Amino acid sequence: MSDLKSYLTSKRKQVDDALNEILETCPSRIAVAMKYSLMAGGKRIRPILCMAAAEAVGGKAENALPAACAIEMIHTYSLIHDDLPAMDNDELRRGKPTCHIAFDEATAILAGDALLTLAFEVLSSAGTEINAERMLRVIQLFARAAGYRGMIEGQMCDIASEGILLNAGELRDMHACKTGAIISASVEAGAVLGNGNEEQTAGLKQYADHIGLAFQVADDILNIVGDPAVMGKAAGTDNSRKKSTYPSVMGIEASKAFAEKLIGNALQALEIFDSKSDPLRAVAAYIIKRKR
Amino acid sequence: MSDLKSYLTSKRKQVDDALNEILETCPSRIAVAMKYSLMAGGKRIRPILCMAAAEAVGGKAENALPAACAIEMIHTYSLIHDDLPAMDNDELRRGKPTCHIAFDEATAILAGDALLTLAFEVLSSAGTEINAERMLRVIQLFARAAGYRGMIEGQMCDIASEGILLNAGELRDMHACKTGAIISASVEAGAVLGNGNEEQTAGLKQYADHIGLAFQVADDILNIVGDPAVMGKAAGTDNSRKKSTYPSVMGIEASKAFAEKLIGNALQALEIFDSKSDPLRAVAAYIIKRKR
Repeated sequence: MSDLKSYLTSKRKQVDDALNEILETCPSRIAVAMKYSLMAGGKRIRPILCMAAAEAVGGKAENALPAACAIEMIHTYSLIHDDLPAMDNDELRRGKPTCHIAFDEATAILAGDALLTLAFEVLSSAGTEINAERMLRVIQLFARAAGYRGMIEGQMCDIASEGILLNAGELRDMHACKTGAIISASVEAGAVLGNGNEEQTAGLKQYADHIGLAFQVADDILNIVGDPAVMGKAAGTDNSRKKSTYPSVMGIEASKAFAEKLIGNALQALEIFDSKSDPLRAVAAYIIKRKR
Repeated sequence: MSDLKSYLTSKRKQVDDALNEILETCPSRIAVAMKYSLMAGGKRIRPILCMAAAEAVGGKAENALPAACAIEMIHTYSLIHDDLPAMDNDELRRGKPTCHIAFDEATAILAGDALLTLAFEVLSSAGTEINAERMLRVIQLFARAAGYRGMIEGQMCDIASEGILLNAGELRDMHACKTGAIISASVEAGAVLGNGNEEQTAGLKQYADHIGLAFQVADDILNIVGDPAVMGKAAGTDNSRKKSTYPSVMGIEASKAFAEKLIGNALQALEIFDSKSDPLRAVAAYIIKRKR
């Protein structure tokens, strides 16, 4: 797929417009804080994956748009809370002051809470065009992936393991929870809302599990070799926090090779699909080539 | 209804058993923290209202049980986050150390997040016995009531208005968001899951709006005249924080009379119902007679 850039740009715009519209009419401080973090220039990888998965199974990207918006809200809430002083205590995110710096700590906690809640409001308000059983399944997928056996457990492990050297298996388990579960849920939700059958959905889940881990390996590499000006956040923070990362466990070159291998596996899982899954192939390649 | 006590006890046990079961199998620190706050001896007013509403419209309380559990999770999450140092900075809740004291701040933030998320997992996993469209409506009700135009906006106002003297109208608006929205949603969800018709649901919503406000007026009075040993938390905290309350705005006696009048209005809204709504009548009376 040669025009990945235009695909990403058009899908990103679709998500941004939808997110903008949802929070447009509310001038309250909490809504301003939510919008501040939600519209801070995220790459929209998860919503794009969600819509691309709907297309890959032969469905319409539009049917996955509510889920795409919801997953970006869940992702943004997790960033706001992860950045809090009691957690990672980060002051910069996507080149801008983090939510608790731009507003205050109470507002940041509540803005995160409100984005998580709004995700489920958006899903449950998607309207009658989407089959209610399928939407309930998506709500269940997202709640499980974001919950105490998914993303939140991953964040707990991440905090608990600062200063402790994990082995490759432990690191993989942590990331499967912390970032992998939500990426898989994004893709699976797209397949469900695109009316994919079980074989297609299972294939896409395999694809997602591999790119989810590759995404994290690439993130770890970027944290060392990335350009802070391009990333919009500081580099070298994992090292100064004594966090276990793929480069720290297996070295940079082996990490790069591992990410390549994961992307190869992801592409293999797409072999049962036709050209409608080309955007998913392109996104897989982009994940390890990105600079931020 | 003479045996309110046994009704409340049996319904409370039903909710407690269901909540216990949900978190039973997970030994992780985050699950332990969630359970610590969820099983700290809450009165279960909201879940009981939810199940009683299902019965009032002629439905089965069991059908409302997932919603009853979910609303208690949402309520508990809001307490955990409200107690945080960046918010009310409370160290005692229901006679026990608050979550961030018993664990730590990061764990408390994540336990709150996880309970909110689990509420939506429970709702979306309730199974095929409950109509999917009705369940989506309940998810929407809860997400709206708990969100940035409901409970979270109320908490924002509560924080922003410390030290500012509100008038009775402003106080009412704040509480309609902060506590009223969730109480109304509990009752309305019960009516929806009990297969109530629109007239019944509207009548119960009227009932709920009145008891929701009465509940808050009674809370404000208890904060002044209540016994800390019975309440399991300190008394007089509103005053020392310079929070506007009904007693501070209209005096204690007028506040008591106002609460009585609200309960009268709530009972009036139940006139279209038969004896199956007796538990709702009894709960209304209990709300202004309770000692904690």
